[in-house]
Amino acid sequence: MAIDLESFANALSENVWFELAFLLVVALFSSFLFTRLKQSKSIGYIIIGMLIGPSALGIIKGTDQPETIEFLALLGSLVLLFVIGLEADLSQIYRFRSMAIALGGSILPWIAGYFVAQAFGFGDEAIFIGATLVATSVAITASVISELGIIGTEVSYAILGAAVIDDIIGMIVLAISNSLMADTGAGLDIAWVLLLVIGAVLFVGLGGWLGSRYLAKLVFNVQVRGYRNKMPHSGFVLAFAILFLFSIVAETIGISAIVGAFVAGTIFSGSALRDGLKKGSQYIEAIFVPVFFVLLGTVVDLREWTWDLIWFAVALTVVAVLTKVVGCGLPAKVLGMNKWDSLSIGLGMTPRLEVALIIAYYAFTQGIIFADVYSVVVFMALMTAVFTPTLLKWTLRKGKYMAIES
Amino acid sequence: MAIDLESFANALSENVWFELAFLLVVALFSSFLFTRLKQSKSIGYIIIGMLIGPSALGIIKGTDQPETIEFLALLGSLVLLFVIGLEADLSQIYRFRSMAIALGGSILPWIAGYFVAQAFGFGDEAIFIGATLVATSVAITASVISELGIIGTEVSYAILGAAVIDDIIGMIVLAISNSLMADTGAGLDIAWVLLLVIGAVLFVGLGGWLGSRYLAKLVFNVQVRGYRNKMPHSGFVLAFAILFLFSIVAETIGISAIVGAFVAGTIFSGSALRDGLKKGSQYIEAIFVPVFFVLLGTVVDLREWTWDLIWFAVALTVVAVLTKVVGCGLPAKVLGMNKWDSLSIGLGMTPRLEVALIIAYYAFTQGIIFADVYSVVVFMALMTAVFTPTLLKWTLRKGKYMAIES
Repeated sequence: MAIDLESFANALSENVWFELAFLLVVALFSSFLFTRLKQSKSIGYIIIGMLIGPSALGIIKGTDQPETIEFLALLGSLVLLFVIGLEADLSQIYRFRSMAIALGGSILPWIAGYFVAQAFGFGDEAIFIGATLVATSVAITASVISELGIIGTEVSYAILGAAVIDDIIGMIVLAISNSLMADTGAGLDIAWVLLLVIGAVLFVGLGGWLGSRYLAKLVFNVQVRGYRNKMPHSGFVLAFAILFLFSIVAETIGISAIVGAFVAGTIFSGSALRDGLKKGSQYIEAIFVPVFFVLLGTVVDLREWTWDLIWFAVALTVVAVLTKVVGCGLPAKVLGMNKWDSLSIGLGMTPRLEVALIIAYYAFTQGIIFADVYSVVVFMALMTAVFTPTLLKWTLRKGKYMAIES
Repeated sequence: MAIDLESFANALSENVWFELAFLLVVALFSSFLFTRLKQSKSIGYIIIGMLIGPSALGIIKGTDQPETIEFLALLGSLVLLFVIGLEADLSQIYRFRSMAIALGGSILPWIAGYFVAQAFGFGDEAIFIGATLVATSVAITASVISELGIIGTEVSYAILGAAVIDDIIGMIVLAISNSLMADTGAGLDIAWVLLLVIGAVLFVGLGGWLGSRYLAKLVFNVQVRGYRNKMPHSGFVLAFAILFLFSIVAETIGISAIVGAFVAGTIFSGSALRDGLKKGSQYIEAIFVPVFFVLLGTVVDLREWTWDLIWFAVALTVVAVLTKVVGCGLPAKVLGMNKWDSLSIGLGMTPRLEVALIIAYYAFTQGIIFADVYSVVVFMALMTAVFTPTLLKWTLRKGKYMAIES
């Protein structure tokens, strides 16, 4: 059996198409299994990736992939962030409560994550470890909200609004972290950091705004002309060209490529093109994103976990939960929500997954963090994504009683 | 200006995403230009590729691409052949007249192409040069038929039926050619060739049949279960896994990967899944196929054309036209169609494009043919695809007069 697995692993590593087919089948299998377990597909991809990775079966080793597979994984992450950007309707920003909840639940985790990582002896990479704690997983929270049947309630609006906003903040934080890393030596000069913050906010905010003003119109016109000329995918193709261009621009000015992909998505989030682009992107996603997520799992090597790393993973997870509960719950409470609803919002904002993992994988491929820290982030993400929904159910029920009592 | 182009070319070659974005924009521009010129988009992609390639502007050199771009081009060609396979409804085969027309128009070009190539001093690669002459471009013929408004006529049925069948024959011919190349030294043993023919027919025919009997049902069940579990792309993902698996199997047994992709498509050509798969694949196609076609053009280097090559290109083009006119027209005439209709069928079957170019590109990347022969095939394909539609209009008008007279 061990020999069979090994020769199978060899066959996979020799042929990219074979590996691709295998990853797709494995991902498909896990998506059925995990939806049956009432968990998100993405969680399943990562766990099945850990199963076929060096941690268990050792069929695929994520740290040692051919260039083409890494390229496809990057493509998958760009498309994923593009779609997340498509969902980030900027009109949500203007709701003050969601903004306050998102801000509290972004800055606190970032800073706390930074200091915890430093306390465990990490240096420059602490900024990135903090950054992975920022963005709530919209996918997980949305599915939990839909599953619990609380769509349309005040709590669900607050959570979803804030989750969308903290994707944007997450990207700004990533952009700042990335620029800070590029600035070796000079140290943390306040003026310099302020400049970075302004630059990142400008890129994410202004880039999206200018894009939605000019590029979205261009894509719309191309789409209309395309329809007339029996080329119904013209707008889609141009949007993808813009996605790649924004990624390059972001990369070139020292912000990460994935931030560019996200901003490219926000361009269309308020336009009539959004649903069409989402529908088309979902087919591209369907092929490349599962491959990406399964690969994320195969990078983890549990056999290399030391006690130090386990403690760090536990500490980071605790920080991840507490900083969202406090950072989001407190503003909610201050802005007039009751105790249990505020707690629900905090817990609802706790799951981290896709953005955290994309940031971690990006930092890993850039050599900013190593496989050990990467796998700690995966642990934190899985824990928050799998277990907080259960806690949320409990606080929501309490919140309902409060509402009835009051 | 010259320096600007050069630094632009350098920037492109340094960043794969930049090149990808550039190829998409260029492809989009050319698709609008060429549909306005009432030509196929694919023709436009190749010509614009020649324009940005070493032949003219020298921005992108198709013979010198990073591994990832070549990988995407291969992905594009696999998806393209998968979609062509989806269109190849096997029930068409059983119409005797289409079968006879397709067979005559496949065997004759293959043999004639082989001998012309040999006459011009080519050796083993002559088999492949012949193979590129086999398959009619369904895309071009279908668009010409629709443009001329003769959908539903006897002539259009004969052409489309035969064009679909000769895709299948083209794949069998490619499979045989590929196996023949593998057999170096032993020479052309009749028994061996016969075995190859049987093997290729078995793979294409039996592979498609077994697939449609068992795999299509599996994909259908997965799709239905996926819908129930809010995973509407499950069948699509599994179909793509099958596409990659068939490509690897075909490659492994010495038939080309692209034949496998085609056969994977035929599995679903008669099933209820076809339209859904086609719709999804078109989004993947929309991104990767233009990139592939533009790259096809950038491989051509017209500056290296010698008079010998020009004569060979002219001879091959003449052979390409004559062998379809005779090979398809004669069976049509014998089976009772009038003179002008038979000629129309011959001319309607003349355009070669996507399959010819995929075979040529495949042979080029495998080192079977060199860039010079490759560009001769591109020349032949462009000539037949651009000019025969005009001739066809003329013979169709003549045919109508015949019909009115009789």
